[in-house]
Amino acid sequence: MNNLDLAIQFFLQLAIILIVCRIVGLIAAKFGQPQVVAEMIAGVLLGPSLFGLFFPEVQSWIFPWDKSQQTRDTQSYLFPISQLGLALYMFIVGMEFRMDIINDRLKSSVAVSFAGMAAPFVLGAGLAWYLHGHPELMLFPEKVPLDSAMIFLGACMCITAFPMLARIIHFKGLAGTTMGTVAIGAGAIDDASAWCMLALVLAKLDNDWSQAYYNIGGGIGFAVVAYVVIRPILARCERYLSKDDSLTDAGLVVGLALMCLGAWWTDFIHLHAVFGAFVMGSVMPRRIMSRDLIARIQPLAVALLLPLFFTYSGLNTKIGLINSIQLWIICGAVLVAAVMGKGVACWLAARATGIPNREALGIGTLMNARGLMELIIINIGLQKGVITERLFATLVIMAVITTLMASPLFELLVGSKQPEPANSES
Amino acid sequence: MNNLDLAIQFFLQLAIILIVCRIVGLIAAKFGQPQVVAEMIAGVLLGPSLFGLFFPEVQSWIFPWDKSQQTRDTQSYLFPISQLGLALYMFIVGMEFRMDIINDRLKSSVAVSFAGMAAPFVLGAGLAWYLHGHPELMLFPEKVPLDSAMIFLGACMCITAFPMLARIIHFKGLAGTTMGTVAIGAGAIDDASAWCMLALVLAKLDNDWSQAYYNIGGGIGFAVVAYVVIRPILARCERYLSKDDSLTDAGLVVGLALMCLGAWWTDFIHLHAVFGAFVMGSVMPRRIMSRDLIARIQPLAVALLLPLFFTYSGLNTKIGLINSIQLWIICGAVLVAAVMGKGVACWLAARATGIPNREALGIGTLMNARGLMELIIINIGLQKGVITERLFATLVIMAVITTLMASPLFELLVGSKQPEPANSES
Repeated sequence: MNNLDLAIQFFLQLAIILIVCRIVGLIAAKFGQPQVVAEMIAGVLLGPSLFGLFFPEVQSWIFPWDKSQQTRDTQSYLFPISQLGLALYMFIVGMEFRMDIINDRLKSSVAVSFAGMAAPFVLGAGLAWYLHGHPELMLFPEKVPLDSAMIFLGACMCITAFPMLARIIHFKGLAGTTMGTVAIGAGAIDDASAWCMLALVLAKLDNDWSQAYYNIGGGIGFAVVAYVVIRPILARCERYLSKDDSLTDAGLVVGLALMCLGAWWTDFIHLHAVFGAFVMGSVMPRRIMSRDLIARIQPLAVALLLPLFFTYSGLNTKIGLINSIQLWIICGAVLVAAVMGKGVACWLAARATGIPNREALGIGTLMNARGLMELIIINIGLQKGVITERLFATLVIMAVITTLMASPLFELLVGSKQPEPANSES
Repeated sequence: MNNLDLAIQFFLQLAIILIVCRIVGLIAAKFGQPQVVAEMIAGVLLGPSLFGLFFPEVQSWIFPWDKSQQTRDTQSYLFPISQLGLALYMFIVGMEFRMDIINDRLKSSVAVSFAGMAAPFVLGAGLAWYLHGHPELMLFPEKVPLDSAMIFLGACMCITAFPMLARIIHFKGLAGTTMGTVAIGAGAIDDASAWCMLALVLAKLDNDWSQAYYNIGGGIGFAVVAYVVIRPILARCERYLSKDDSLTDAGLVVGLALMCLGAWWTDFIHLHAVFGAFVMGSVMPRRIMSRDLIARIQPLAVALLLPLFFTYSGLNTKIGLINSIQLWIICGAVLVAAVMGKGVACWLAARATGIPNREALGIGTLMNARGLMELIIINIGLQKGVITERLFATLVIMAVITTLMASPLFELLVGSKQPEPANSES
C-alpha cells in the first residue's frame, strides 16, 4: 500500500471512530462515565478484542495491517494525528493550569505527589520481587535482572493518567479548584518521574546510561528554560502578538510553534510529548494569549483529534491472554497494590497536609486512574522486552479497571456537588 | 525507525514548517503574493532543492528518508495530517459556496468550465502528439501509447488549482461575488473532469476499465446522493443538532463525520478527497450549522493543518532536471499552451456570456493557476509511469509559474478594488 491508498482508508477510519465514540459516549454517560472513557472503550470495541473477533475481514479492511512491518499500517496514519491531538490538548491543560493554587498548596502538592510515587513504587517493586522469583509464571523474560524488573513494575504503578485526569477534571468543572490543581500538579510530577524510571530501566538493560542522563537532565533543563526564559519573554511580547484585545494570526502561530517545539524536545529526550506541551501551555501569558489560544484550538482538537488518541490506544489492546486462575489471582494482586499504593496513599497524604476529607478523597480517586499513560509505558516495556505479553495483559486490565473506577467512585465519595472554590478557606 | 522515533521528528517538523511559512509569508506579502503561495515556496525551500542542497545532513535529520521504502519516512507522517487539513479546508470552502449565484450565472459557469477544459485539452493533447513523436527527448516512457500520452497531458493542462483558487478568493474577500463563485464552480468541474481523464489513462495503461467506471459513476452517484438525500435530511435535522441558536457538540461531530465520509468516498473511487469534502460542505444547512462549523474548524485548520499540505507538496519537488536549451524551449511551449488554453480561453468564455471585462479577466487569471492539484496529478502520472522525470520537472515549472503569476496579474488586471457584489447588475 502506498501513501495514497492508505490515505483512502484514513478518512473512513476517522468517520467510523467519530461516530462510534459518539454512540458509546451516549451510552457511557448513562453509567456516569465521561466521554474520554467512552473513547477508550470505543477503541477496544473497534480493535481485535471485539469487532475484529466477530468480523475479522471487515475489521482488517477498515484498519489494515501490513504483516511484513508488524505494525498496523493505516493505524500508523492515525498515530501522528492522535499525538498531535494529545499535544494540543495538554497545551490547553497547561494554559488552564493555576500556578497560584499550586503555590498556595505547595505542601499538599508535594506530599501527594511524593506519596503517589513512594507507596506504589514500593508495592510494585515488592510484587516484582515475588513474581521474578517464580519464572514458571513467565511474567518477565529470562534476560531481565531482578532490579530492572522491580524498577519497571514500580514505575508502572506510579503512573497517573495525566491526560485523562486533566480531561475528567475539565469535564467536571474542577479546573480552577484546589482538588483539580493539586491532582494535576501531582499527576504531572508522578508521571514525569515514572518516565525517568523507565529511562533508568532501559539504560540498565542496554547498559547505556547516556539516555538516562539526557532524559533527566534534559527534562530539568527544559523546565528551567521554559519558566526562566520563555515565560518572561512571552509576557513582554504579548502586546505585539495581539491587536484590539485579540490574538493575531502571528500570535496563534507563535503559540502553536512553541507547543510543537516543547513536545518535540520532551519526546526527543525520551520523556513524552505531553510534558513539553503541558509546560509550554503553562508559560503562556494568561490574559489574551491563553484565552484566545484555547478558544481557537479547543473546538477542533477536542471534537476531532483527541478522540483519535484515546481510540488509537484502545485499538491496539488485546485482552484474552490471561487464561488461568493463577494469573487472575496475580492480576487481582496487581490491582490491589495499584489502588492501595496510589489512591489510598494520595488520599492520606492530602488529609495529612490539611485538605478536607471530601477533597482529599477526590484527589485520591483521580490520582488512582491509570488510563492511557499506563498503556503507553507498558507498550514500551513489551517492545523492549522488559515484560512478557502475559504481564502486559495483566497490567492492561489494571489500567482499564482503575480508569473505569474513577468516575463512579468520584461520584460516590465526593458527589457531583461542586467543591469549594480554591481561594475560600474551608 | 519505529512509530515512536518518527513521532519525535514530527513535532520538530511542525514547528519548523510553521515558523518558515510565517517568515516566507511576511516576505511574500511585500510582493503581493498570498500566504498560500508562501507556504508552497516554504516547502520548496525546505526540500531537496535548497535546504537539502546546502545542508543535506541537517535536512535529512529533520526530514528523514527511509531509502528502503523509497519514501520519505517521516514526511509520510505529515501526509495524513496535510490531507486532513486540506479536506477540512475544502469543507469550509464548500460551506461558503453560494449555490444561488451559480444558479443565477449558470450559463457563465458552464461556458467557463467548458472553455477551461476544451481549449487546454486540445492544446495539451496536440503538444503530447508532437512530443511523443520525438522519443529522443525522453519525455514519455516507451511503453506509453500515443493516445494515453495525449489524454494525460491534456488532463494536466485542464487542472485548476481548486484548493488554492478557493484560498486566494477567500483571501481577497471575493467568496460571495460572481467572480469568485463562477471561478470556484468552474474550477471544481474542471478539476473533477481532469481526474476522470486521469482515470481513463490509468485504466487504458492497465487495460482495466472497471476503475474508470467506478470513478465516473461513483462521482455522479455521490453528488446525487449528497444533494438529493443528505441535503434535505440535514435541513430538517438542523434544529435537533443545535440549541439556543448554537451548534451542539453532536452537531459538530455529525458535520465532521460527514466530511470524512465524503472525503473517503471520493478518495475510494479514485477521484480526490477534496471533492467529497467540498460537496459535503456545500450541502450543510446554511444558517446555524455552516456558520458554527466554520467558526470552530477554521482557526486551527488554517493556522496549523493547511500549511502542512502546501508545504508537504513543495517538500517533494525537485527542480533541476531540466538541463538543456531544448528542454527549456519545450518548457516554454508547455507554459504558453497552459496559459493560452486556460487563462485566455476562460476570460473569453466569461466575456462571451456577458460578464464584464474586469471580472472576466479576474476569472481567467484565477482559473489559470495550477497550484498543487497539478503537482498531485503529475506525481501520480510519474508513479504510474505515464511520464518521465523530465516531463515531470517541466510540468512542475509550469505549475509553479502559473501559480506565481496569479496574484500579481490579478492585481494588475483587476486591481485590489472590491468587485461589485454578485446581485447588483453591472
